[in-house]
Amino acid sequence: MKANLFFFLILFSFSPAFPQEKASWIWYPGDFEIWLHTEVGGRRQERGQIYPPFWRVDSPYGLVQFETNYNIPEAETVQVHSDGRFNVRIDGEMIYDLDPMNLALPAGKHHLLFLVENFKTFPSIRVQGKRVNSGKDWRVSNQNKKYNTVGTGNFTDPLSPPDRFSLEYTPISARVIQQEAHKTLVDFGKETFGKVIVKGLKGTGKIRLFYGETPQEALAETLAETYEYRNVNRSVAASDTTDSRAFRYILALTDPGVSFDRIEALYEYLPLTNKGSFECSDTLLNKIYDVSLYTLNLNTREFHLDGIKRDRWTWSGDAYQSYLMNFYTWFDEDVNKRTLWALRGHDPVETHINTILDYSFYWMIGIYDHYLYTGDTAFVKQVYPRMKTLMDFCLARTNANGFVEGLPGDWVFIDWAPIEKTGEVSFQQLLLARSLQAMALSARLADDPDYALKCSSLSEKIRTKIFDTFWSDEKNALVHNRKNGVLSPTVTRYANMFAILFDYADPAVKQKIRDHVILNDTILKITTPYMKFYELASLCEIGEEEKALEFVRDYWGGMLKLGATSVWEAYDPDQKGDEHYAMYGHPFGKSLCHAWGANPVYLFGKYLLGVKPTSPGYTTYTIEPSLAGLEWIKGKVPTPNGTIELYMNKMEIRVKTAQGKGILRIESASKPTVEEGVSVTRAGEKSWEIGLDTPLREYVVRY
Amino acid sequence: MKANLFFFLILFSFSPAFPQEKASWIWYPGDFEIWLHTEVGGRRQERGQIYPPFWRVDSPYGLVQFETNYNIPEAETVQVHSDGRFNVRIDGEMIYDLDPMNLALPAGKHHLLFLVENFKTFPSIRVQGKRVNSGKDWRVSNQNKKYNTVGTGNFTDPLSPPDRFSLEYTPISARVIQQEAHKTLVDFGKETFGKVIVKGLKGTGKIRLFYGETPQEALAETLAETYEYRNVNRSVAASDTTDSRAFRYILALTDPGVSFDRIEALYEYLPLTNKGSFECSDTLLNKIYDVSLYTLNLNTREFHLDGIKRDRWTWSGDAYQSYLMNFYTWFDEDVNKRTLWALRGHDPVETHINTILDYSFYWMIGIYDHYLYTGDTAFVKQVYPRMKTLMDFCLARTNANGFVEGLPGDWVFIDWAPIEKTGEVSFQQLLLARSLQAMALSARLADDPDYALKCSSLSEKIRTKIFDTFWSDEKNALVHNRKNGVLSPTVTRYANMFAILFDYADPAVKQKIRDHVILNDTILKITTPYMKFYELASLCEIGEEEKALEFVRDYWGGMLKLGATSVWEAYDPDQKGDEHYAMYGHPFGKSLCHAWGANPVYLFGKYLLGVKPTSPGYTTYTIEPSLAGLEWIKGKVPTPNGTIELYMNKMEIRVKTAQGKGILRIESASKPTVEEGVSVTRAGEKSWEIGLDTPLREYVVRY
Repeated sequence: MKANLFFFLILFSFSPAFPQEKASWIWYPGDFEIWLHTEVGGRRQERGQIYPPFWRVDSPYGLVQFETNYNIPEAETVQVHSDGRFNVRIDGEMIYDLDPMNLALPAGKHHLLFLVENFKTFPSIRVQGKRVNSGKDWRVSNQNKKYNTVGTGNFTDPLSPPDRFSLEYTPISARVIQQEAHKTLVDFGKETFGKVIVKGLKGTGKIRLFYGETPQEALAETLAETYEYRNVNRSVAASDTTDSRAFRYILALTDPGVSFDRIEALYEYLPLTNKGSFECSDTLLNKIYDVSLYTLNLNTREFHLDGIKRDRWTWSGDAYQSYLMNFYTWFDEDVNKRTLWALRGHDPVETHINTILDYSFYWMIGIYDHYLYTGDTAFVKQVYPRMKTLMDFCLARTNANGFVEGLPGDWVFIDWAPIEKTGEVSFQQLLLARSLQAMALSARLADDPDYALKCSSLSEKIRTKIFDTFWSDEKNALVHNRKNGVLSPTVTRYANMFAILFDYADPAVKQKIRDHVILNDTILKITTPYMKFYELASLCEIGEEEKALEFVRDYWGGMLKLGATSVWEAYDPDQKGDEHYAMYGHPFGKSLCHAWGANPVYLFGKYLLGVKPTSPGYTTYTIEPSLAGLEWIKGKVPTPNGTIELYMNKMEIRVKTAQGKGILRIESASKPTVEEGVSVTRAGEKSWEIGLDTPLREYVVRY
Repeated sequence: MKANLFFFLILFSFSPAFPQEKASWIWYPGDFEIWLHTEVGGRRQERGQIYPPFWRVDSPYGLVQFETNYNIPEAETVQVHSDGRFNVRIDGEMIYDLDPMNLALPAGKHHLLFLVENFKTFPSIRVQGKRVNSGKDWRVSNQNKKYNTVGTGNFTDPLSPPDRFSLEYTPISARVIQQEAHKTLVDFGKETFGKVIVKGLKGTGKIRLFYGETPQEALAETLAETYEYRNVNRSVAASDTTDSRAFRYILALTDPGVSFDRIEALYEYLPLTNKGSFECSDTLLNKIYDVSLYTLNLNTREFHLDGIKRDRWTWSGDAYQSYLMNFYTWFDEDVNKRTLWALRGHDPVETHINTILDYSFYWMIGIYDHYLYTGDTAFVKQVYPRMKTLMDFCLARTNANGFVEGLPGDWVFIDWAPIEKTGEVSFQQLLLARSLQAMALSARLADDPDYALKCSSLSEKIRTKIFDTFWSDEKNALVHNRKNGVLSPTVTRYANMFAILFDYADPAVKQKIRDHVILNDTILKITTPYMKFYELASLCEIGEEEKALEFVRDYWGGMLKLGATSVWEAYDPDQKGDEHYAMYGHPFGKSLCHAWGANPVYLFGKYLLGVKPTSPGYTTYTIEPSLAGLEWIKGKVPTPNGTIELYMNKMEIRVKTAQGKGILRIESASKPTVEEGVSVTRAGEKSWEIGLDTPLREYVVRY
């Protein structure tokens, strides 16, 4: 048996029948994502009309050259699969009479180059040999005299190049809840997304499908945000499938001559594994976690979308929160990277990302945060040239004070709130300072020390200038903005809570911000889950987890009481009835499944389970769990090297570690009890640190 | 009858059935051409392998918005034809329930916007109403916050958007000149281009087609530059059509199981009208003119191609000559503009045009020359932003002396000749100075006076510095280059003849250049028709038309003697037999139908007929005819406002004028005799100017 196995292993190593996984499809970095964005971006619909993005949407490069220098001890033949017409040169010499399944490579050191043309989708190639295989070490150029490492991903099947990328599908069914002649209303039981199937459709005339996140929306017919009309002209019944749409309810109206059997759907989804989890003694919070997770799931697709009904776009500010939420749920690195590439597009940079000033900054900060969680240096190096041109664009638009402000064509977003957005807004300067830090760190990874130095020194200068300019000793806070040289007397939460989140304030200043802004009810309240994301995080950063949970119960709980099966784009408890569904001047304009509403999955993971990386890729991490008034909490947080599991009640904490070196930091009046050999050190009056030095081990701590 | 006609005219003006010609397809400027380039650029083949360009080939923008502000006294409906999915906004409000054939526009002043998405070819749209029609006054943006006037052209048919652009086809037949079992050689009688049809093809096996500009090439089989193999598997005979190729001869080899009836072709051509002509008392020159014109015709297609067999690419240096030749033949403005847009592509500029330093300059100079002949201000304005970014790219790469030199990644071409191409080459500085002049003039047209001033002053500085640096009093010439601060002692023709052509040398310097360079046989000879274009022109500029014709008879006559039916890429009379066909290391690598070889059509028109514009669009022009030793010459030169016709023998000149104000300048010992009322003024000792003030009139001058 042993001998046989050995024989098989040899076969495995050398047989050309098995090495599929050695060769990957490769492409120009970002172009798979840029192409996918051209496909996905235009799927937004508004009342039957297409609604593609209002920013520049780039096409991928249609003509690129892939190359490698190989060195093999003996000649071999490789199989070439190309998505696009191509030619091959070895050491600069064109290969004639090419048989792609049998390309002979001479032994020794040689330069191998493929020029691939595909202006319909984008060029990609897969080369598979015994030793020479296309993969992430190959280089690519769009023939602009610049060379990049190639883009790669989970595409290894020779018959499935990356432009065959597809989400997955599974059938779901609906219940008829209203039925009249030629009028059927069905309910899929909860917010969902997919391709609608009209089974057994026949006759002559029109069928009209109105989609609703609520029954009211579907029944409002042409006031629904999305709908479609189809002409039917057939005597034999057949099934029709639509483009993918978001809905819970569908109203089908048919002309008298048209009939169908029933309405079903193909649920469309990105396969994701729940690696994170959260549970606690409060069933409402558990329900909120589940609905948040489902909301995030529905919005995590080709890219991180903002909402599935209306925009279906990638928005850098929204996506930034999704990157972070992703790290506490499925830790799917690819969807983050797809989104980052798609948002950025190609050079030249002519507008801010999504045309929004703040969104350029979230893009740069997002890359650094992605790196912190994943440790993916290769990605930072690859995307770095595009970070740099974006930062150069931003810096070229700073004013004489070195501050940014909205210039003609810029959208200054911050939040949906009645606030001043012109002049030097303090909040934007904080994002600039943080982006410069992200750039400095990325520049170091990408071996660009001069730029790193420039950015880090600029960041420091701006941080100092922010406090010199905007800090009011009278208000004990950063004021909102300065316009025409005149400081505003207004204090808003934005800059102040980001000063805490970015750790730009010293402890005394933090205390002032806490008392005079965060916990001050006279300061303009935040009403979107979008900015609530940061507000709740900043509450937790200053030890107010209980207050944060109070708000979560109230706000998310309020939506659940109204029957929400996914979290909304905005929620105002003072509104009544259908008022809840209106936004942007449309009666059903509000998205009832909005990614930014999923933020409890992040909040619970980062601030209750308390898990966060302290060095890139979780090589070190801390766990600072907080019961926040609950009897017990338990859950999982994924890392690139395994999942951290935690259970905590008022007496005991159990932690299962991942790879990497962790520290458990807890509050306890007395010294916690740990197993033999585990270190406990005092970190403050009532604060203790337990060393989690052994990977994949369970620690039990009593306190 | 008269009443009826009047009635019809009213119908014509107001009936919605006729106003097709009022509405044009519109697109993002340059994107029709950029798209066409993605289609055409990759058609080059080398021995069965595809061979797309080695420079960055841009894709068009896939998502653009077209807009107009209209003002109509009464409401109307318009028909919308769109090549791509689209939506419409009036005054910013989306139109729902859109019927593209019936879009209602309210009366009064309104803003109309179409967002069109087409990532497969490119977005274009056609809007047709009573008063509101898409056309050249509309604006377009790729959503980068910059606005352009739209691209338009000869596309008005609602069912034929610009991406249906096609050349035309007409059947041609061939003669079998060699026939053996499974081997057929056919001859189409002369160099031609088209899709080959294999009539009555059947059986099982392969048919292999080898294309030849000579029988030797076709018979060389896989050493031919282009060929293709087809698999046949059918029992009933049918015709197969190939992609378009250049050939005179085709060798068809079939496997034993395969047979066909005969080989024909569809000649593929751009419809062009011969508006220019030339004839003289020398039948050899007439033959040379005809073959040159045919050569240019074959290479004037979607774009100005360099050659039809091999490259089939757009090369800026080659195309520059084609623009000029075009103005003495068919005056097809569109093919010039198509070529200029395609060469330039989109921003950012990352390499020189075609990666060649000199070719960036020819591109800018070409636009100005196009303007001089056509007076097309709108084109200059539209392309100006791309001229400016290219010039900025060039200026950013000048050295401390303000001179250009080849940097890493740049190809310094000049000519196929054994010359030094590194360091500061004097020839390149002349092109830079001329480009700066072209930029200054274009900037003025595009209302950018600051840049105009910058460029004109820079151009003057560089012109002065060229002579200060490179003029050698010892050599009586500009020397070739300076490297590491050391002037070369070598004199070549390039800079010296361009100093004459650009009129950068005063009369005394011109005289020196003439005697010590142009007419000096010890200076390295020019062997390509490419640089011969400029050399022959500079000979004519210094009054050496006879010498120029002598060379034409010898060089072009030499090719004709060898049986050429089109002009070659290069010709060396010292070569023997098949040596003539070799180039680039391939036995049949030389193109035997190369646009740059057509230069006699320009030379004869500009320097024998002597017609040239002296202000943009021929509003003024001069005619300086030269018999150059011939008994008589006659011919036509097109202008945007009619065709100038000229006949001249040793005693008489007859001129038919176009619109615009002309001057006929002739040499004559005595005062020429003209009709009454025609002005004759002395312009030199033996030089006279006759005023051609009346458009479309025939003038007869005896001298």
